[in-house]
Amino acid sequence: MDFEALFQDQLDALKQEGNYRVFADLERHCGSFPRATNRNEGETRDVTVWCSNDYLGMGQNDKVLSAMEQTLRECGAGAGGTRNISGTNHHHLLLEQELADLHGKDDALLFTSGYVSNWAALSTLGARLPGAVILSDALNHASMIEGMRHSRANKKIWTHNDPEDLRRKLAECDPDAPKIVAFESVYSMDGDIAPIAEICDVADEFGAMTYLDEVHAVGLYGPRGGGVAEQEGLMDRITLIEGTLGKAFGVMGGYITGSTALCDFIRSFASGFIFTTALPPAVAAGATASIRHLKVSRFERAQQARRVAQLRAQLDAVGIPHLPNPSHIIPVMVKDPVKCKMISDMLMDEWGIYVQPINYPTVPKGTERLRITPSPLHTDADLEHLVRALTDLWSHCALSRAVA
Amino acid sequence: MDFEALFQDQLDALKQEGNYRVFADLERHCGSFPRATNRNEGETRDVTVWCSNDYLGMGQNDKVLSAMEQTLRECGAGAGGTRNISGTNHHHLLLEQELADLHGKDDALLFTSGYVSNWAALSTLGARLPGAVILSDALNHASMIEGMRHSRANKKIWTHNDPEDLRRKLAECDPDAPKIVAFESVYSMDGDIAPIAEICDVADEFGAMTYLDEVHAVGLYGPRGGGVAEQEGLMDRITLIEGTLGKAFGVMGGYITGSTALCDFIRSFASGFIFTTALPPAVAAGATASIRHLKVSRFERAQQARRVAQLRAQLDAVGIPHLPNPSHIIPVMVKDPVKCKMISDMLMDEWGIYVQPINYPTVPKGTERLRITPSPLHTDADLEHLVRALTDLWSHCALSRAVA
Ligand SMILES: Cc1ncc(COP(=O)(O)O)c(C=O)c1O
Ligand SMILES: Cc1ncc(COP(=O)(O)O)c(C=O)c1O
Repeated sequence: MDFEALFQDQLDALKQEGNYRVFADLERHCGSFPRATNRNEGETRDVTVWCSNDYLGMGQNDKVLSAMEQTLRECGAGAGGTRNISGTNHHHLLLEQELADLHGKDDALLFTSGYVSNWAALSTLGARLPGAVILSDALNHASMIEGMRHSRANKKIWTHNDPEDLRRKLAECDPDAPKIVAFESVYSMDGDIAPIAEICDVADEFGAMTYLDEVHAVGLYGPRGGGVAEQEGLMDRITLIEGTLGKAFGVMGGYITGSTALCDFIRSFASGFIFTTALPPAVAAGATASIRHLKVSRFERAQQARRVAQLRAQLDAVGIPHLPNPSHIIPVMVKDPVKCKMISDMLMDEWGIYVQPINYPTVPKGTERLRITPSPLHTDADLEHLVRALTDLWSHCALSRAVA
Repeated sequence: MDFEALFQDQLDALKQEGNYRVFADLERHCGSFPRATNRNEGETRDVTVWCSNDYLGMGQNDKVLSAMEQTLRECGAGAGGTRNISGTNHHHLLLEQELADLHGKDDALLFTSGYVSNWAALSTLGARLPGAVILSDALNHASMIEGMRHSRANKKIWTHNDPEDLRRKLAECDPDAPKIVAFESVYSMDGDIAPIAEICDVADEFGAMTYLDEVHAVGLYGPRGGGVAEQEGLMDRITLIEGTLGKAFGVMGGYITGSTALCDFIRSFASGFIFTTALPPAVAAGATASIRHLKVSRFERAQQARRVAQLRAQLDAVGIPHLPNPSHIIPVMVKDPVKCKMISDMLMDEWGIYVQPINYPTVPKGTERLRITPSPLHTDADLEHLVRALTDLWSHCALSRAVA
């Protein structure tokens, strides 16, 4: 059996479609985010990163770094075991308390990533609640989709952000089946936001539990950074809130929060939680410091919102088309994988600007885009430079302008 | 729908069986491993950890800590993105090169954990190689089992460590189907080691690729810590070697190594690789430092082997039954979940010794055990204290002795 040929054939097909991914080799410079060094074929150059999910630059926050350094020196590099077998460090428990408090829940449970938290929680709920039906928003993230798939529970997909369609799908379910309504607050690729209250109303009508992924919202929305549900005063209506420590909080890890019994249930039965080395204590301590900072400091969120509004206005002024949405994510639509990659390459090579092209499978084919994430650390000069570059490339590549 | 009651019922059942897990709240003391502080109901006490998977104490190695500290200050706390979207840091690439070199392979691919690497690699291979059959050792780890399950590929289970049964199972397969033989080198709960050469011979007969989990062997076996396959000169016979950075290497993360096309294939198609924030650069740098150290330093491995032999001899002398095996893992068999937990509690409360009871689902019911992992850092006095404690408890609990 020629396995090499089997692998190569599928890689060649990807290349032909224009969907083969090349990762940019970066070294971010702590203290001068969003600057980084990019290495390419032996050469290095300075670039400005415009597509980071370290949305607020917390990855270079001194409280975060100091907490990590101190814990590294006190507790060592790794946890040394799974949570059950010698790997629970006091810093994990402190972080879980902090997270429960952030979301106004009784308890929280840490995972090695947001991906694993979604996958493990949904696969456990779906598999262990007898006869469960999961009602999934059509645009849910891969980690949720894989969790549902893994659970082998019945699944019904409702039209993205459409509570009326959710109602129709719920009405089709066996009234006695445990039902789980799974959705996100901020959808990361389009930047649109779910109508959480309406979704909760519909879920309540049918006695369904609600599962909300706030990965692109925690740290960013709400007076304490608790996410969109906090901002809208809806946290108590969500049965399970899931989030990440790797985006606005700037570190790594994932979690769920909910009732004590719910967290204990996932803790006790989820393979992806049980059978894996726990997060390094220093990572947990860094995340705790980050959450604590963003619970009280609103500066980062306010400054980010200003930068986002500024960039949108400047793009509008020059007619660069971007998806309108109420969030911090600015998707500049190119709608062609090859052009999208070409523009990204030219931005890097000619302008020192790094925005990764977003192609299939991250977004549907034909909706390829540059996904721009302004941070509080981008300056006026950075914005002007980016808009000048895009204007130039739009003319150069004969891309259509938005009609003003 | 009363979800709380659904959760609570299953938790109550666990408790009734004696399989409900209580995590020990620890703070390991960097610089004085295996010492730790244990917190319990508001009280703290000093304990000696005897069940860590930081097998060699690399989690307190100064090269590892210094590399992490320096990278933290240079590159910040987190990676800031998925590998594709701004999250590839130069330290990830250096680590991947180091891992490829460690196993004598062309390439390597990093994951957030060993669990994710197994799950993602096996689910991608099983799902994307048309008609694939996975031949799985009966005692493979949960992360491999979940990966195979997720792939929905055909699966055949062969008797643990039995190449003859593997041959029978391979002979039943369609000769034209791509076949993957998946197994581990050191099995973590029994500490036995696979007959790798024989398994490769059988796989070769049928043109199957070989997938080897060396999670409990990397850093520990072989002249450079490349694992059992390195020790036996068999690395080139394995198609894919999988490992962790969270056990003997003392940090966190997982990986696969293999041909360039194989790694590129998993990189390009594995959801669990693509859709998740990359490891913090500091974690990657710490792991690289640890691997480099253990490639040249044999002191830790030699000293660990001495401690393991010493403890086995002392247990034999007092008739405490433990599973014989050729590895560094000493399973002291109790065979009852309630007694196992009780002994563990008494060791902690009365002797300041922490060994987690290993119960279902980590091991089959009826094979409950204390899994002891001597490290180079345990002293003669630590060993004596442990053996005294076990001797005392064995009499106290009327457990049977091994016949000498
Ligand atoms: C909506 C959503 N959920 C979950 C995740 C996974 O979180 P993490 O990066 O912490 O694995 C991501 C992205 O990575 C995401 O976009
Ligand atoms: C055999 C085996 N493979 C994989 C893993 C997962 O590795 P990690 O802890 O890095 O997730 C473990 C244990 O955790 C294991 O015992």
